[in-house]
Amino acid sequence: MALPASIAEQLRAILGPEGFLDAPEDLRAFAYDLFANHQPDAVALPESVEQVSAVMRLCNQNKIPVYPRGSGTSLAGSPVPVLGGLVLCSSRMNKVLEVSVTDRLARVQSGCVTGDLQKAAAAQGLMYPPNPTSMLYSTIGGNVSTNAGGASGAKYGVTRDYLLGLTAILPNGDVVKMGNRCQKDVTGFDLPRLICGSEGLLAFIAEVTVKLIPLPEGIRTALAYFSDVTEAGSVVTDIVSHRILPCTLELMDRVFLNTVAEVYGVPCPEGAGAALLIEVDGPDMVLDGQMETIERICREHRAVGIQLARSEEERDVLWKARRGGTAALVRKADMLVTLDYAVPISLLPRALGMMEALAAEHGCNVVTIAHAADGNLHPMVLYSPSDPAQDAAFRAFADASARAIVELGGTVSGEHGIGLEKKEYMPLQLGDEQMRIMRGICRLFDPYGIMNPGKLER
Amino acid sequence: MALPASIAEQLRAILGPEGFLDAPEDLRAFAYDLFANHQPDAVALPESVEQVSAVMRLCNQNKIPVYPRGSGTSLAGSPVPVLGGLVLCSSRMNKVLEVSVTDRLARVQSGCVTGDLQKAAAAQGLMYPPNPTSMLYSTIGGNVSTNAGGASGAKYGVTRDYLLGLTAILPNGDVVKMGNRCQKDVTGFDLPRLICGSEGLLAFIAEVTVKLIPLPEGIRTALAYFSDVTEAGSVVTDIVSHRILPCTLELMDRVFLNTVAEVYGVPCPEGAGAALLIEVDGPDMVLDGQMETIERICREHRAVGIQLARSEEERDVLWKARRGGTAALVRKADMLVTLDYAVPISLLPRALGMMEALAAEHGCNVVTIAHAADGNLHPMVLYSPSDPAQDAAFRAFADASARAIVELGGTVSGEHGIGLEKKEYMPLQLGDEQMRIMRGICRLFDPYGIMNPGKLER
Repeated sequence: MALPASIAEQLRAILGPEGFLDAPEDLRAFAYDLFANHQPDAVALPESVEQVSAVMRLCNQNKIPVYPRGSGTSLAGSPVPVLGGLVLCSSRMNKVLEVSVTDRLARVQSGCVTGDLQKAAAAQGLMYPPNPTSMLYSTIGGNVSTNAGGASGAKYGVTRDYLLGLTAILPNGDVVKMGNRCQKDVTGFDLPRLICGSEGLLAFIAEVTVKLIPLPEGIRTALAYFSDVTEAGSVVTDIVSHRILPCTLELMDRVFLNTVAEVYGVPCPEGAGAALLIEVDGPDMVLDGQMETIERICREHRAVGIQLARSEEERDVLWKARRGGTAALVRKADMLVTLDYAVPISLLPRALGMMEALAAEHGCNVVTIAHAADGNLHPMVLYSPSDPAQDAAFRAFADASARAIVELGGTVSGEHGIGLEKKEYMPLQLGDEQMRIMRGICRLFDPYGIMNPGKLER
Repeated sequence: MALPASIAEQLRAILGPEGFLDAPEDLRAFAYDLFANHQPDAVALPESVEQVSAVMRLCNQNKIPVYPRGSGTSLAGSPVPVLGGLVLCSSRMNKVLEVSVTDRLARVQSGCVTGDLQKAAAAQGLMYPPNPTSMLYSTIGGNVSTNAGGASGAKYGVTRDYLLGLTAILPNGDVVKMGNRCQKDVTGFDLPRLICGSEGLLAFIAEVTVKLIPLPEGIRTALAYFSDVTEAGSVVTDIVSHRILPCTLELMDRVFLNTVAEVYGVPCPEGAGAALLIEVDGPDMVLDGQMETIERICREHRAVGIQLARSEEERDVLWKARRGGTAALVRKADMLVTLDYAVPISLLPRALGMMEALAAEHGCNVVTIAHAADGNLHPMVLYSPSDPAQDAAFRAFADASARAIVELGGTVSGEHGIGLEKKEYMPLQLGDEQMRIMRGICRLFDPYGIMNPGKLER
C-alpha cells in the first residue's frame, strides 16, 4: 500500500528529496528490527525539529500511522511499522550538540549513536554510563524510548537515571521541551520519565539532555568459572555484601560456554557449568584490593578457574567469550531470539533453573546469559522457524517462560521493551488498572492513535 | 465545617476510634506544614491498606477532599487541606517491613520515617542515599510524593532514582501495585515515577520498595572559606573536573556565615564571603588523597581558611555552621521562608548574584545556602508577616525571584515541590501543553478531583 499521492507530495515538500523515501528497496531497508519486519508505505528522514513537527501535524490530520525509529536494533519489534504508514527515522539528526563540563551534561539530537555520545563525554573526562550491548549502533533516542539498560545497570542505573530533559514532538506538531538543564527539578509531573520507556507511543523524541558523571580512573576484569549457576549466583551476593558493586557481572551458562569453546577454541576449565565476567571500576588505588577480595570470594565458592586481565589486550580476551558468544550461537541455528526477563536478584538461580526445565519440557535449544547483579536474564532460543515443530516449540517455550516469570514476581522485560514480542504478556503483569491508565495517557498525547499503532491495544 | 455525620460515622467504623479524629485540638495539629495552614474537617489515621482503600472509596463516592499527609514537614504547603475535607495521614503505617541484602532493597510502609529506613539499611551494610534535611522526621511516603532531594543529590541522585515499586491506592479504592522487586523493569509506562513527585494529586502511597546500595566505608569532611560565592562556585567545577564527585557540597553565603558567627560565636575568617562544606565518601583508602586534591584546589582559589575534620566530633563542629544556621536565623525574625530554586550548575553564581540584587531592590533580608554541586539554591527570607511593608516586600521578592529563575532556564522547585507556594509559577515554567497533559493525567486517576484539591487547578 502506498500513501495517497497528495500526502507523499506534501511530505516530500517538507522533507526535501533526500528526506523522503518511497522506493521499494528503501522501504525494505526500514521494515526490520532484530525481531520482526513489515514494510512501511514511506520513510521520513527529517533534519530538524521543524520538519518533524510539520510531518507529525500532517500525519495527525490525515490519520497516517507514524513509527518513530532510531537504528532499528530493537529486539522486541518496537519500531516495526506493522500497519504500514510512515517510518519517522532520526538517522539524519545525529549530532552531539554540546558537552558541558561545568553543567555535567550533554545535549544531543535523538539520532546520535549512544557510543558517539559516550566518546564525546569521555573526551572531556566525563561518562555517560548506560551501555546497552547495541551502544555502538543504537541511538540515544531509541535508548530513551525503551529506557535501555545494559551490563553496568546494577552499579550505574539505566537510561532514565541520566535523563535531564528532552524535546518531544507531539502528534499535533507541538514542540514540547520537558525537563531542562537542571540537575534537580521537581516542578510538575515527571513527564521526561513518562516519555522514557514509552516506546514511541506518545511522541517523537527530537533532542535529549543527559546527566554525565566523572569518568572512573580505571577498570579491572576477571573471568571466573563455577560448577553451576547457583554457585555463581551466591558469588554475586557475597561480592555486594563486601560493599563492592561491580560495574559488570555477566553470568554465562554451561551451553553458552560450551558453544564458545567449540566455535572459538577458547578452552573451558573442567567441571565448569557457569562463568562470571566481573569488572570493577573506580579510583585506581582501590581496584586491585577489590579484585583480591573478589578472587577470594570466588575461591570460597570453589571456582574451578579464575583469569585476571592485566592489560587492555587481556581484557579483550576475557570479553571474547561474552561478546563473541552470541555471534557463535547465531552460526548454530537459522534463528536466534533473545528473550529478556528480570527477577529479584535472589531468584535468579531459580529463574535460570526454570528456563532449563522449560527448555527441556518443550524440546527447545536455550542458552542463557544474565546481567547477574540486577537479576536480568536473557534466554536465547536457537531454532529454525521454517521447521513447524521447532517453531511451535519456540512459541510454547516463550509463552510458558513469560508466564512463569510473571508468576515468580519478575518482569517480562528488563531492558529490551515490550514491542510486539511481549504485548500479550504486559496486561498479565500489570493488571487492568495500570493498562487503563496507560491507554488513557496514550489518548492524552495522541487522540487519533497514530503513534506506533499495532503495539499497545488502545 | 464538619463532615456530614453519616460520613464521619462510616469513617469511624472503618478506622476504629483511634484511627479517626475530629476534635478541634486534633484538627489544629493536622492543619499545618512549614509553609501554610488550614484546618481539615477530620483526620484519618489508617493502619492498613484495606482501611486506606475503604476510606478512599467512601470519600470518592461522596466527593470529600482527601489530603495525603506524612509528617507535614513540607516547605511548600503540599499537604495542607486548603478546602477542608479529610487529612489521610500515614503516621500509623510506619514499619520497615523488610531489608533484603540479597535483593538489595527495602520494603517499608509509607509512614516510615526516612531516617529509620536508613538506619535499618545501614544495620545490614546497605545505604538508602536520599537525605533531605528533614530526614529524621519526614516519611518515605512524603519523600516519594515530592521526589525529595537532599545534600547528596549530585553524587547519589534523588528519591525517584531509588524507587523500585509502590502500592498506590486510587480514589476509587483500587489497590495498584506499580513496579516490583526487580532492579530492572521496562514493562509498561513508568507509573512509579509518575506517582513520584505528584504531590498527592494522583493516589495515596501505602507501601514503597526502594533500591539500596553498599554502604560507603568512610567519609571525610572539610569546611573552606572563600572571598565570594563566584570563587566558591569555580571550586565546585574544579573538584568535579578532577573526577571527584563529593557527596556534600554545601555553599553558604556571607549573611549566613555572619549570622552563625553572631549567634554561635563560631569565628569566621577575615575576608570570608562564602563557605563550602565539602564531604567525600567511599573506600577509606582513596578519601585522604581526594581530600588533599580538594584542599589544593581550594588553595588555588585563594581560600581564606580551610578546616578538616579528623574525627566524628570534629565533623559535627564543621556541620554546626550549616545545620545550626537555619535555627540561628529563625531567632532573628518572626518568619523564615525557605525558597527552593535550581539552575544549571554553571549559572549558580549568577543566580546567587540575582538573589542578592533582588533582595536589595525589594528591601528584603535574604540569606542563601545552596547544594552547590547540583545548582540547587535555597534563598531564605527573614521577615515579619504582621508588618505590611515587610510582607509586601517578601511577596515582591518571591515573585520577582521565581520569574527571574524561569527566565534563566532554571526551575521554581529543585526539591521541595510546588504545593501552594509555587502553583502560579508552574505554568510559566512548563507551558500550556505540559499543564494540559498533567491535568489530563489527574482526571485519569481521579475523575472527581478529590485528591489534594486547591493545588493544581483542574
